[in-house]
Formats: sequence, structure tokens, C-alpha cells
Amino acid sequence: MPATPAMYNTIALVVRPNTAGIEDSVRDVLAFLRDGGFSVVFETDTAAHLNMPEIPAMSAQGIGEKCDCAIVMGGDGTMLGIARQLAPFEVPLIGINQGRLGFMTDIPLEGMLPVLGRILAGTHKAERRTLLEGRVLRDGKAIHVGLAVNDVVVARGAGSGMVELRVDVDDHFMYNQRSDGLIVSTPTGSTAYALSAGGPLLHPTLGGIVLVPIAPHALSNRPIVLPDSSEIVIEINRGRDITVNFDMQTFASLMPQDRIHIRRSPHAITFLHPEGWSYYNTLREKLHWNEYPSTDGKI
Amino acid sequence: MPATPAMYNTIALVVRPNTAGIEDSVRDVLAFLRDGGFSVVFETDTAAHLNMPEIPAMSAQGIGEKCDCAIVMGGDGTMLGIARQLAPFEVPLIGINQGRLGFMTDIPLEGMLPVLGRILAGTHKAERRTLLEGRVLRDGKAIHVGLAVNDVVVARGAGSGMVELRVDVDDHFMYNQRSDGLIVSTPTGSTAYALSAGGPLLHPTLGGIVLVPIAPHALSNRPIVLPDSSEIVIEINRGRDITVNFDMQTFASLMPQDRIHIRRSPHAITFLHPEGWSYYNTLREKLHWNEYPSTDGKI
Amino acid sequence: MPATPAMYNTIALVVRPNTAGIEDSVRDVLAFLRDGGFSVVFETDTAAHLNMPEIPAMSAQGIGEKCDCAIVMGGDGTMLGIARQLAPFEVPLIGINQGRLGFMTDIPLEGMLPVLGRILAGTHKAERRTLLEGRVLRDGKAIHVGLAVNDVVVARGAGSGMVELRVDVDDHFMYNQRSDGLIVSTPTGSTAYALSAGGPLLHPTLGGIVLVPIAPHALSNRPIVLPDSSEIVIEINRGRDITVNFDMQTFASLMPQDRIHIRRSPHAITFLHPEGWSYYNTLREKLHWNEYPSTDGKI
Amino acid sequence: MPATPAMYNTIALVVRPNTAGIEDSVRDVLAFLRDGGFSVVFETDTAAHLNMPEIPAMSAQGIGEKCDCAIVMGGDGTMLGIARQLAPFEVPLIGINQGRLGFMTDIPLEGMLPVLGRILAGTHKAERRTLLEGRVLRDGKAIHVGLAVNDVVVARGAGSGMVELRVDVDDHFMYNQRSDGLIVSTPTGSTAYALSAGGPLLHPTLGGIVLVPIAPHALSNRPIVLPDSSEIVIEINRGRDITVNFDMQTFASLMPQDRIHIRRSPHAITFLHPEGWSYYNTLREKLHWNEYPSTDGKI
Repeated sequence: MPATPAMYNTIALVVRPNTAGIEDSVRDVLAFLRDGGFSVVFETDTAAHLNMPEIPAMSAQGIGEKCDCAIVMGGDGTMLGIARQLAPFEVPLIGINQGRLGFMTDIPLEGMLPVLGRILAGTHKAERRTLLEGRVLRDGKAIHVGLAVNDVVVARGAGSGMVELRVDVDDHFMYNQRSDGLIVSTPTGSTAYALSAGGPLLHPTLGGIVLVPIAPHALSNRPIVLPDSSEIVIEINRGRDITVNFDMQTFASLMPQDRIHIRRSPHAITFLHPEGWSYYNTLREKLHWNEYPSTDGKI
Repeated sequence: MPATPAMYNTIALVVRPNTAGIEDSVRDVLAFLRDGGFSVVFETDTAAHLNMPEIPAMSAQGIGEKCDCAIVMGGDGTMLGIARQLAPFEVPLIGINQGRLGFMTDIPLEGMLPVLGRILAGTHKAERRTLLEGRVLRDGKAIHVGLAVNDVVVARGAGSGMVELRVDVDDHFMYNQRSDGLIVSTPTGSTAYALSAGGPLLHPTLGGIVLVPIAPHALSNRPIVLPDSSEIVIEINRGRDITVNFDMQTFASLMPQDRIHIRRSPHAITFLHPEGWSYYNTLREKLHWNEYPSTDGKI
Repeated sequence: MPATPAMYNTIALVVRPNTAGIEDSVRDVLAFLRDGGFSVVFETDTAAHLNMPEIPAMSAQGIGEKCDCAIVMGGDGTMLGIARQLAPFEVPLIGINQGRLGFMTDIPLEGMLPVLGRILAGTHKAERRTLLEGRVLRDGKAIHVGLAVNDVVVARGAGSGMVELRVDVDDHFMYNQRSDGLIVSTPTGSTAYALSAGGPLLHPTLGGIVLVPIAPHALSNRPIVLPDSSEIVIEINRGRDITVNFDMQTFASLMPQDRIHIRRSPHAITFLHPEGWSYYNTLREKLHWNEYPSTDGKI
Repeated sequence: MPATPAMYNTIALVVRPNTAGIEDSVRDVLAFLRDGGFSVVFETDTAAHLNMPEIPAMSAQGIGEKCDCAIVMGGDGTMLGIARQLAPFEVPLIGINQGRLGFMTDIPLEGMLPVLGRILAGTHKAERRTLLEGRVLRDGKAIHVGLAVNDVVVARGAGSGMVELRVDVDDHFMYNQRSDGLIVSTPTGSTAYALSAGGPLLHPTLGGIVLVPIAPHALSNRPIVLPDSSEIVIEINRGRDITVNFDMQTFASLMPQDRIHIRRSPHAITFLHPEGWSYYNTLREKLHWNEYPSTDGKI
């Protein structure tokens, strides 16, 4: 590993809290990075739960302004949280998974150091992912703004009946939909909640956004994929206890006639993958696609 | 119409509240029934919103004990509510739909009187529908009991993540399921919420119960149809703000380790349909199946 | 193992052809059965591909008439073939899987002998499975008759457009359906092709038959589960190169106006499972349901 | 209507054959176009089935070379056939539907003349649609080439079992898939066969291609949307009687190891819609989305 890489001098480390046995791995990474001449900081929460006072702590905002790269050790949930916070600063992200392969945390803990070394030396596959931004408007005035790596979800409360949502796209009326709710998902989110609700997979390089209705009353209310240049407006026609969730971060007090305006964020996330990384490899493993080819003469 | 039919002497009338223009139809039915020599009572809520003090009012319990038959004027929602209340008394039900055909309210308002006449004279197709009863147990003690014509639904709150439910059937472990929730549905409910969530249609004479997961994390958690002699136990493994709904009547304060025991009710509902009624005719019309056969030489 | 069990004296052995390394396992079973005092015969095809002339060969018909039980070594395909042939004779079946667990071949090769011993000594869980019989009628005359353990499938040819099928159930018109075809499946078949086409799982003890349309033109043509007392009639309205398949055994020359009459066979299959066998265990393993419960504090 | 529009001087007319009562409408259009100063030709098949010898006939190739625009009177099938033939010449297309609204034939016969007038005068919404081209390679040599407006479908024969297909995208291995076949669809095709097989809707302006497996063995083999810059290679691993269909035009003699290379065609189709046309209006009407909003106080 080159002593002083030009691209990534200051590196943030973000570690999933309450993860048994993670400390040894963190120390390995720290030693490896210091040997390589990098400066390392902890994200504030990470610093709080790891007892390593010698490493300086920094807020997500600080990391965004000061760091050249962030290494995330944990699962997709940990990555999701920090990615959304760092997106405005376009800090590239490297994901190391604890336990099992994640869609976004694709480097196994085992053998991570040489992989990290090559990535930080500039030998990697950079991949950009879009985000969504959503504004909640009441009487024409924004009362909440959110950012989502995965999805913006408008959903009914547990004890209430269906919602009815009016959806317009680029000022064209699409439909009034009755359902449990509507998922507006990025390609990144298409392997998460949207998939459970019956949505298609979207390749990350597709410039698309998918609308996936949750348990729609009309059987023909199928998922629809729009270009990610679309402006989507969801208006609450009817329903009680309706929330809007940005990557499961809830804004709860929606009322009829409220509108949620959703569009692609001007910011994007950059993941740094090891060279040779393939999106399809991840899909195959995560979705159990890799049982074939059949070799026994039987199908 | 025979002057004094033996089977149905006292008839209850249940009418959907706040339905514009319904009063004239109600008066038509009343006149027709009195001409036929029937005694007629209003269900309490019906009496409250219709201004016809000359008709005696009776609670659902009273109707159950005193009436030979109930005529429901409204939609499937009105039928659902009264059917659940009358089920323990096995009072047969006749459904007249306001507006558009219902699955359970299958007689159109137009031309209803001769149809009613034939049914009340005993020329009808009687059809039995099963119900589900559910008991919520906490620390082994029943804290809530409910009855459902359509479905028992265990579901997460709007702002919380997935639930994890453990399901056992007849003391056999089925699975631990992560999802938005689980629908346990009768054949009657199979055309309602269960259908929206991806469930199959169940013919009413099938002795079956269908479990339909809502947006399940595992794509192979498919709907499964069990014999309706099954005892289904759902235990809350994880999750917040979980509710159990009996035909959308909510019991809200579920906690981890609570169990919901679900089985076929000893009671059943009897619908009286006009002779010649066909379940498939209703399905075709409600599900827009009736566009064929193709007659233009083109498929 | 008791020297001379009363129930199962003569046992047929049916082995999947061309299965590498199966001979040693067959010899183990043979020795075990002879030690136990059983008479053993090979099904004709099994005899032909195994070089063990000391074991007498018998046709499926002969097995049906003479044997008390059949042991199937192979996969679900092997079981499917022999089960259909033996069904008229109600010979109970024991399934030993080669390679991986089957839905019907549920005893692993490893450690099979003591399991076999207990089953043949009468300690087992007997489970009955329904079959379908189908008759193809042209101008009112039966031109083909078939039996199916899994499913009867009416399907279009590869290079032709949609078929249009008229479906009647118990003399009631259901619909005219345009699709790639229609699967009529037993509970046993509900984990096979019907599942791939979007059908629900049916518990084997459910007295049901499921109709699953393949790629239907109308999105509301959903799977429907009927009681297995139903008589289903499928008439070819339109289409070319249409076939009907009984467990993938093809009858190919269907023409418009041909009708396929399908109903539950008077015969049934009996599987002998090891005690403690659970249908849900098989489902969990085959459908990868067994990843839970979550133990790491994360959902 | 202006006497001599500059853009569209010579116009081809393509009419669905064997359409009862279409002749009067054709004469109306002819008179209208001649009054407007346009030259009009018939496509060869149209000329053959309409008895109007005064109108010159021209092959699709001739139309492609000589005409400025083609008006299609019929259904989506008629449009599909001519669009594929005219695509290399980029002749814009106007669709008039016979009977009911089509996805591509969106102008109703009733009142078509003023609509046509405005379109031909240049007041229209032009919309481009991508096509797919596919080459079948055997031993590295192209043995068939096809073009598709809707979809390229690799599918099994009616009487044969599953196929196993290996799919690579941009030289990355995606999966080995067992199924009835695989649909590779444009946004235009996403409302056709791909939708029946469970695919999502793709907005026409999305630069996407969707892969939809037909009745896949693995439940996690979900539809996946790729950027339309992708090169998709499907290799036949196993199966019999496999065909590849380009918009249902069949190439039948596929063999194991054959490969189908699919990518976006360099050509595109241009539809000329009336001003104010909205894709969502068509979706709503075709998919019965337009039953709402609810106005009666009930959901």
C-alpha cells in the first residue's frame, strides 16, 4: 500500500453500535490505516460506544466537511443512516459487512485489509447512487423536508382503513389510489421494502424511480418505473394516522390535502467497491439465485 | 307472494347510515313487507338515522333473539358489521346493494321487491359462510376476544419497522415471519384485504383459511391455505405499535410475547341469495372478468 | 426391527435411473430388508438399469397387485411417476431422497435404515394425497384420459399467441380467460409449477384444488381455490398448438371446442412419513423459510 | 386545416384487415387528406383487402423511403406490425383505434378528422419509443436477426419441461434461470405480455429494458429493470423445443448453447399524439384505474 495516497488522506470510521466482537476488527482497521499514513476520525456515535479516546470524534457534518472518505463497518442499516447524512458532501463510502453480505456493505470482514488497501490506493469501482428528496406541503407551505437513500413511503396507520392517495407526475394526473400506502423508491431501495411489496429490481445505473403500491385495492395498480427526472406529487385524499417515512425516519402528522413533493436529490452517494465487484454477484447471493447451473442431468 | 310464510315472520331491516335517497327505498321495502304480513323492526342505529318512529327499534342482540331474518340495505361494509353481530344467533341475511354490486350485498335496488318476495317465500339459495374467532393471550390469559367475518389481521404501526411473527399451526411450528403483518382470512375475506395483499380467491364452500403475509421480507413467504379445522397461533416476536384487527375493528396494545389464537368460529353466517345466484357471476362483475368471449376474430 | 412385520411383507423398490453412486445405497436397503424378512422386488425400469439379476422385476401393475409398500429412492420426479401408476392400487409409498430434500421424498439417504425400520414396523405418519383425473372430450366423446398427482395443465404452444379458455365449475360459468394456459393443481402440486406461476400453497389435508392462470391477460384473473368435490370443465375457445399435460405427460393435439373435464380421482396416494414428520419443516427447508428467528437484536 | 403543410406531404394509410365497417371510415380519411392536399398511398396488404384501386399501393419499404407519415387504423396489433417494419426509416406514426382505445392507437374513430388535421398541421406531441434488436448466434455465427417493438421472448415448447437459461448483462454473469421462459421488454412492451407475467410498467421516456421471467422456479427471480444501454446475452443451457419470439414473430429451432444477443436498436419509433395526450390517461383507461376519487364519503 502506498505510504501517502493522494485521494484519501482523512478517513472517517463509522461502526454499528452494540455489535459483539467488533472492537478487534476496528483496531485492525485503525492500525492498518495509521500504518498507511491516513488520518482517522470516528463518527460521534461510534466514538461514544467504542472506548478508544485516542481517536478524535467528529459529527456527520464535520466528516462531510473534513474527510475524504468514510469506512462503514456494520450492515446496510448503518450505511443507510450515515449515507443519508453525508450525501450533501459527496463523501465516498466503503462498506464492510459484519456477519453477512449487505447490498451496500459488500466487503467481508474476513480479509478486509488488503481489499481496503487497494481501494484506498485508488483501485476500485466507483458507483453513484441517486437519492430522493421529499417536501411535505400544507396549504402550499413546506412543513417538513427529508432525504432518502432507499425510499419515501406514505402509509396508513395500523388501526385505520385504507388511504386514498392522488398521484401526479410532472403535472399529469396519474391516479387516485386506495391502498395501505405507496412506496417511492430509488434503485438502491428496490432491493429493500419495495421488493417485499412486489416491486421490480432496478439496476443502480438505471435513471429510474419506482412507485410500488402497498396492498392496493385495484389489482391493476401495478408498480410503475418512471425516469428519475420526474417530479412526483402525492396528495392525501383520505385516511387517518398517515405518515411519511424517509428511509423509515417518520414524519407522522399528515392530514388530508397535505402534499408530498418528491424528486431526485441534486446530491448523490458514491460507493467505492473492490475492483471486479459485480452488482449481480450481490443479487445472486442475497436472493439465493446461485443454486445453478444444474449439473446432474436433471432440471 | 304468499300471505303468511312460515319461515320468516319477523324481519329486521338494517340500513347504511347517511345514504342519500335511501329513505324511499326503505319505505318501498316496508310497504312490501307489511303487505306480505311480516312484522318488521329496525336495527337501533338504523332507527336512529331514519325518521320513522312507527317502526320499532331493536338492538343486534334483540334481533338475534327475535327475528327470523335480516335484510341489509347498503354495501358490504354494512353487511359485515351486522353479520358479525348476528352470527351467534344464526339469523339468515339478505343483502340489497346501494349503488354497485357487493360481494355480500348481491341484490340490486332496482327490481328488488319481487326478488325479495321469492326469497322470503322460501325460493332461494342458502349459503353458509364461516367466521373466525380470535383470542389474544398475554401470559396465558385471554385479554381480548374477537370475531371476524373477513379476516383477523396482525399488523405493524405506521411509523415502525417490520414485525416478526412466529406462526404455529396445530402445534406445529410454521415459521418466523418478518413483514408488515399477517392476514388470516376466511373465504369471505379472500375477496377483500387478503386479495389486495396477493392472496388467492377461496370459494365459499371450501373449508379453508388463508394466511397472507403483507409485504413479507422473504419472497418465498407465500400465501398458504389451511383446512379450517386448523388452530393458528401467532406470537409477537418483535415489533412496536402492533395491532390486531377483527374485520378492521382494532385491538391496539399488543406486546412482544402476546399470542393470538385463531380458529373457525362454531357459528356461521347464512346468506339467502336469489335462486340462480352464482358466486362466479359476482366474481366476474366485481373483478371485471366479463369482457369476453372475444367475438371479433382477434385475441 | 421386528423379524416379520404383519403389514408390509412384500416391498417394491423404485430407484431413479442414471444416479451416480446409488447402487451402494440400494444394496444397503436390500440387505436391510432381507435381514428384516421382507420380500423385495424391483420395478421393471429399476431392474433394467441396476445390474442385480437376483432381485425379481415387476411392472407397476404387478407391484400394485402384489406389493404392500413401495420404497422410492430418488427425487420428487421419480416419486411422481410411480405414484401416478400405483395410485389405483393404493400402495403406500416411502420416499428416500438422493441429494437434497424433496417435498415427497423426505427421508435423507444418510441414516435411512433405522428410519425405514421404524416406518415398516408401523411407527409412521400416514398421509393421504388426492389426485386429479382428466378426460379430454371431443364432440362429446372421450379421446384421452389422464391421472395427475401434481397438476393438469392446459397450455399454448411456444410460437403461438394466447389461448382463450372457457372455464365452468359444477355447471356454473366461471370465465373466459386469455393467458398462456391454466394450471389445475392438487395440494401436492401447489409447491410445484403452480407456485412458480403465482399460486398459493395448499396444505395437503385441505380438500382443495387450485386454478392458477399462467400469465393471464386480465390482471384480476387470480388463483382461485375450489373444494375438491368440484367438477371443472375447460373448453378451448381459441388458440393453436394447445396441449394438456398430466404431471408434464403431454397430450398434444387439442383443438378448439375440445373440453377437458377434471375432478378428484376416486384413488388417493398414501405417503408413509417418519413419526414426527411435519409438512411445515419441509416447506421451511425447501422455501428457505428457516433463516429466523433473529437473534442479533436487529430486524 | 392548412392547404399544404410542409412536414407531411405524402401519407401512408395502413388499415387492419377484415374489420367490419372500416371502409366508410377509410373513405372519410381519404377525402379529408385529399382535401388537405396530401398525397396518400396504401400499404400493400391494406390495398389488397380494400377495394379502392384508385389509391396507389406501396410496400412497407416503399413507405419507409417515400412517405412522411403513416396513419394506422386498427388496433395495437396492426400498429405493432407496421411500426417494426417502418422503424429503420423513422417514419412517424399516428394511431386511430377501431373499437376500443389501444396503448399505441390512441385516437378514437369518432371525431378523428379534426384531431388528424391538427396533428398533420404540426400541433402534436411527438413521442419516441425504443426498439430491441436481437441476434441469434450458433457457434458464434448469427443465424437469425430480429427487431421488436414490444419484446423478445425466449420460451419453452408446450409439451416440454422448464428451460434453463443463462443470462449475462454487459459481460457480467447474472444468473442461470429455470422457468417457462424470459421476456425482454421495452417500455412499450411493458403494458403487454410482460405485464401479464408480473412485470412492472415502464414509462416510455425511461431509458430502460425489463427482464421478466415467466413462471420462474426460484421465487426470488423477480423482474429486473436495466438501463437500455445494456447488452443482454441469453444462452440456452437446457430445454427442448425452445423458440425466440420478436413481437410474437417466431424463430423456432433453438438449440442448447445457442445465444441470443439483445440490445436497444439504433432505430426508434415516433408516435404523433394529439396535443394534451397523456400516457397516464391511457393507462388509467386501459387498466381500469379511473374509478376514483371516491365521492360518497366511503372508501
